[in-house]
Amino acid sequence: MRLSRYFLPILRETPKEAEIVSHRLMLRAGMIRQESAGIYAWLPLGYRVLRKIEQVVREEQDRSGAIEILMPTIQSADLWRESGRYDAYGKEMLRIQDRHERDILFGPTNEEMVTEIFRAYVRSYRDLPKNLYHIQWKFRDEVRPRFGVMRSREFLMKDAYSFDLDQEGARRSYNKMFVAYLRTFDRLGLTAIPMKAESGPIGGDMSHEFIILASTGESEVFCHKALLDLPKPSPDLDFEGDLQPIVDSWLSHYAATEEMHEPARFEAEVPEDSRISARGIEVGHIFYFGTKYSAPMNAVVTGPDGQEHPVHMGSYGIGPSRLAAAIIEASHDENGIVWPESIAPFKVGLVNLKVGDEATDRACEAIYGRLEAAGVEVLYDDTEERAGSKFASMDLIGLPWQLIVGPKGLAGGTVELKNRATGERESLSIDSALARLGG
Amino acid sequence: MRLSRYFLPILRETPKEAEIVSHRLMLRAGMIRQESAGIYAWLPLGYRVLRKIEQVVREEQDRSGAIEILMPTIQSADLWRESGRYDAYGKEMLRIQDRHERDILFGPTNEEMVTEIFRAYVRSYRDLPKNLYHIQWKFRDEVRPRFGVMRSREFLMKDAYSFDLDQEGARRSYNKMFVAYLRTFDRLGLTAIPMKAESGPIGGDMSHEFIILASTGESEVFCHKALLDLPKPSPDLDFEGDLQPIVDSWLSHYAATEEMHEPARFEAEVPEDSRISARGIEVGHIFYFGTKYSAPMNAVVTGPDGQEHPVHMGSYGIGPSRLAAAIIEASHDENGIVWPESIAPFKVGLVNLKVGDEATDRACEAIYGRLEAAGVEVLYDDTEERAGSKFASMDLIGLPWQLIVGPKGLAGGTVELKNRATGERESLSIDSALARLGG
Repeated sequence: MRLSRYFLPILRETPKEAEIVSHRLMLRAGMIRQESAGIYAWLPLGYRVLRKIEQVVREEQDRSGAIEILMPTIQSADLWRESGRYDAYGKEMLRIQDRHERDILFGPTNEEMVTEIFRAYVRSYRDLPKNLYHIQWKFRDEVRPRFGVMRSREFLMKDAYSFDLDQEGARRSYNKMFVAYLRTFDRLGLTAIPMKAESGPIGGDMSHEFIILASTGESEVFCHKALLDLPKPSPDLDFEGDLQPIVDSWLSHYAATEEMHEPARFEAEVPEDSRISARGIEVGHIFYFGTKYSAPMNAVVTGPDGQEHPVHMGSYGIGPSRLAAAIIEASHDENGIVWPESIAPFKVGLVNLKVGDEATDRACEAIYGRLEAAGVEVLYDDTEERAGSKFASMDLIGLPWQLIVGPKGLAGGTVELKNRATGERESLSIDSALARLGG
Repeated sequence: MRLSRYFLPILRETPKEAEIVSHRLMLRAGMIRQESAGIYAWLPLGYRVLRKIEQVVREEQDRSGAIEILMPTIQSADLWRESGRYDAYGKEMLRIQDRHERDILFGPTNEEMVTEIFRAYVRSYRDLPKNLYHIQWKFRDEVRPRFGVMRSREFLMKDAYSFDLDQEGARRSYNKMFVAYLRTFDRLGLTAIPMKAESGPIGGDMSHEFIILASTGESEVFCHKALLDLPKPSPDLDFEGDLQPIVDSWLSHYAATEEMHEPARFEAEVPEDSRISARGIEVGHIFYFGTKYSAPMNAVVTGPDGQEHPVHMGSYGIGPSRLAAAIIEASHDENGIVWPESIAPFKVGLVNLKVGDEATDRACEAIYGRLEAAGVEVLYDDTEERAGSKFASMDLIGLPWQLIVGPKGLAGGTVELKNRATGERESLSIDSALARLGG
């Protein structure tokens, strides 16, 4: 992409309304624009990141055997009356009347609708297990939306729902999502630690939040240092095999959010030099809730015993829009964002230091053409801004690599390659630089 | 994908509520499920098709130089008050109050919002032209939604908006979209004909609907036969070059919808044996509307003359959810859907005629593994249904190729490859069949 033809509205000043660093950087880097309180448009750079996060989430859901569908944003109130939640859900639910004065709502979550879909088609335990997920925009009418897309009213959510004959099957489905989440966050460049969460109406131990450590996190968390270095599940893992040992290896170490923290246990179980107490951001939540929806909504299957059984369900959420902000909270420096390569909006920023200089233009065009031809995503700064401003913008938007091309270097046959994360700069021939970038 | 693990709820009976063939087939093939009047969930098979259509649309928008963003579904009423449309728009607009009793709405279209985004950042004619598009769910509260996703209340729309200094620039932007649409529909396996549409408040000749011919179409259209065979623009076309000759080659032949039809002109301009009068379905609309929004909303740029000018805008819509149905209207037979390969949910249906027979299972597993490894999308029917039912389902869901594997053929070293569109069947060795399918 040529910057001169792109739409990258960078702000030189720090917007006053932004309280946290990810919000400030997303506004400054031209990633998002607030359209009303807690409602954002995703500008080109931001949307590229959001789609890449979404794709990583999708690939890991698919790998685990979950199946993608898409449920609509608007739901009928009657569906929520079946579960009893229409009246129970508070003011965060956006309630609407259509032109025929029917009660509808903008879905804040989809347990009821997915249960309705399941019960319409599935009759037998032989068709289980099933895990249906979708990645769809949700709306929760927060009384005081803030922190940008970290806590917005309209937000993107991947929510998966598992269906099993019994609790034992549900545990296997739960474990698949547990492992899929570990892989997902790892690919996003995050160290996410599963922590026991409030277990809700069912009791039991199948409710975990995935928390990333970030100094700007919203709440305090406590865990054993060993969790930072546990190996992540490999991509060739057999999701149909026994995943309990992997889950156990994570749950054998102390990890708790503020709400669930037990200081005495923490001190007893974790040696002093292994205790971590830090700030954390919740980036995922997985949850087993048994027959809470299937029983009142009559989502039943015939078991091997010939009897009807309400299915055991779990739900599993990750917010890609929130993740875009959370990743910045975990990965930035004083000059701007530092994107992990897996979700960077472009891999390379190509900086032409002297637009109008024939040799520099020609070298840049050749490099740009070769990178594009090789399928390397490159943002080519072909504008007439001065060099200092170009460097500042590139650092701000945080592309992993900057390839800097100017007349001086070219005279000596070299260009400069800068690694955004480490700040290292290296002079190389054009061919070596391209080889390094996969071009 | 193994069918035994998939979620493909095929209906044996024809649903009564479905009035048109695409609606019937989408329900029967387990592509969609109605959640409330005019509101559908996309089941796995349907969602795969929808995403493929979306991706073809995206690629052709990108190729033409348009830039993708994502605007939210919920918009503030105040924005629509600026253009005067909040009061003017009828009951199709879904009006909502949030918890603070602010007027908001579920966007039926995005002219106001994109104009707001543009005016916030762009100041100079030097930053033009720009074309911003998004692919987002919209809501129009149709009084009587019907025909499934062909006319639903919640629907997916690609809407692009171009910004230019003057009408001459706007025409160049318009032509890019004209050509991009020709390419898009061609890739989707459709013959779409641009037809002059009501020009709206501006007058002039820059408003066209793209219509596909289908015997079940909603309205009558009239055109010159030559339009069916005009060559489509090539992918290496330079969108920065002069596109007017391409546009003219299409507009030089008579083509009109019922509303715009002039029988006398039709008969004068088109020889009798070249006259086509047929049913058509609108699948796209492109439209130049000048300063209709930029003037009241004060979206201005400084021109070369140093003065401020309201920008000239156009909007360009394609509905991917509607297209899924329109493609079926144009491509089906008495046994079901016939997908064009570019958007088929899977390329190949692998039919195991005797699950449990060791040799057949082994051959199917080997074929499945090789196709997957080669990146060929395959749906493997590994269920215990009887052969007749498997064939009927495969024909219904319309995958381009069926690879049929049974003990008899295997004994002679062959499998059968069936082309869904032509019905041709061929006995081949496994290796030849795989080679044919890119495996």
